[in-house]
Amino acid sequence: MDQNERKPRVAETTFRVRFAETDQMGIVHHAAYVVYLEEGRSELSRQFGASYAEFERTGYALAVTELSLRYIAAARYDNRITVRTWIEQIQSRSMTYNYEVVNEDNQLLLVTGMSRHICLDESGQVRRIPHEWLEGIKAKMYLD
Amino acid sequence: MDQNERKPRVAETTFRVRFAETDQMGIVHHAAYVVYLEEGRSELSRQFGASYAEFERTGYALAVTELSLRYIAAARYDNRITVRTWIEQIQSRSMTYNYEVVNEDNQLLLVTGMSRHICLDESGQVRRIPHEWLEGIKAKMYLD
Amino acid sequence: MDQNERKPRVAETTFRVRFAETDQMGIVHHAAYVVYLEEGRSELSRQFGASYAEFERTGYALAVTELSLRYIAAARYDNRITVRTWIEQIQSRSMTYNYEVVNEDNQLLLVTGMSRHICLDESGQVRRIPHEWLEGIKAKMYLD
Amino acid sequence: MDQNERKPRVAETTFRVRFAETDQMGIVHHAAYVVYLEEGRSELSRQFGASYAEFERTGYALAVTELSLRYIAAARYDNRITVRTWIEQIQSRSMTYNYEVVNEDNQLLLVTGMSRHICLDESGQVRRIPHEWLEGIKAKMYLD
Repeated sequence: MDQNERKPRVAETTFRVRFAETDQMGIVHHAAYVVYLEEGRSELSRQFGASYAEFERTGYALAVTELSLRYIAAARYDNRITVRTWIEQIQSRSMTYNYEVVNEDNQLLLVTGMSRHICLDESGQVRRIPHEWLEGIKAKMYLD
Repeated sequence: MDQNERKPRVAETTFRVRFAETDQMGIVHHAAYVVYLEEGRSELSRQFGASYAEFERTGYALAVTELSLRYIAAARYDNRITVRTWIEQIQSRSMTYNYEVVNEDNQLLLVTGMSRHICLDESGQVRRIPHEWLEGIKAKMYLD
Repeated sequence: MDQNERKPRVAETTFRVRFAETDQMGIVHHAAYVVYLEEGRSELSRQFGASYAEFERTGYALAVTELSLRYIAAARYDNRITVRTWIEQIQSRSMTYNYEVVNEDNQLLLVTGMSRHICLDESGQVRRIPHEWLEGIKAKMYLD
Repeated sequence: MDQNERKPRVAETTFRVRFAETDQMGIVHHAAYVVYLEEGRSELSRQFGASYAEFERTGYALAVTELSLRYIAAARYDNRITVRTWIEQIQSRSMTYNYEVVNEDNQLLLVTGMSRHICLDESGQVRRIPHEWLEGIKAKMYLD
């Protein structure tokens, strides 16, 4: 799964499907999962002690450059959803996250996902991820 | 606050502001609070032992007929938000909820709200709220 | 309708209901109308020759302080929606808009709404609406 | 681009970025593009004389099974966005769409996308796309 055969640290967050996230098919709309994945990244940042809100206050941002999702099963209003998020790869200017979204009520796998991000400064220029953030993430992204 | 001077039972739910809920002013977009209020209603239903998902499975729905919000202070990404929800009034065919949305991090009042709902059947006709639901809610809507 | 018995200039914009805006009741979710009203304000600004994007570039913003909607009939996916927006009142620091949302396909009135806004500078302080904007709006808000 | 070297018929739809679609980075949030692609599919269906609303009334639905997007440039509030949508492939039970999202104001390419869909009946079972719809689409998906 990662280049060194090391196991990634997986962050989990659980929340309920909101009514507004359903569509007329009676299920969670596929765009809602994109927001769920973002919640997964936010939770991972919190668990790494490096909240994304703080990262943005340094004047940098991680812009999404690529996103892909596979939809395996549907979820419904009020279901409890767990998003599992881990860092697949980190480089000097970019990061790749992987995701699994699970129905916590029955442990059914709903969605798998991947997103790539690039580090930008406030003017929108591509930048190296600041050293301390990069090292902080590298130090925590694997289980051992 | 209610017709009988009785204190309403208040349901609380707390969650974090999602990045997608912010707008270019850097704060939570005002439409997001409408979804937060809905989360408040969902939580109240759960705490009353009468999940709205179950209510809908009986073939009825509570359609929103009126909604009003006052915006007092702004919230930001990653803030913890608490929604306090209570039933202001219940009648044979309609219900009124009241809300307070608070920034859990600093206890600042962000938004107050009110929504009215009418009971509809699957064909969209106005109906009496089914007796057992009505009585169940009345039995729980006050603190004593 | 306004203090001087003068008829307000009404801006209209028409668009289709997006699938993502429906919910499991098979109709447009009530929060979507809050975004529709915002689209109404955007269109009014464009028609007044004073785009809100330009207004924000001057360093000011109109923050929503109050919002109310009455839901009269439901709309569905792919329906064409018209939002009619007019300025009910403008004062030195605040504005009130009124709205009608209509199903363009059958001219059914779906929603009526009202929103109040206050002028803020970039630090979040309440400010007078800049003179030229205020006068520009006053000059255009009535039909004659 | 397609198996027969034939040019696909491209459906275009243009609309403005809504304020609610921006995030605190000051740009359109990446989840909004998922809804834009859906609008692209809706428009293609309308132009093919086979509205998706009608398709759903036959008791079938096209569920998203895969989605991928590449984000190339950012868009901002009030920008005019054009979504170009075409059918990359249609099979008995599934379809693949391709997309380009362009800033109409400056013709900058913002996003490219792909989505796969599978035909389901009301019980959620995978079904063949009804013959007349399949043939109708095949007859129109290429330019000549």
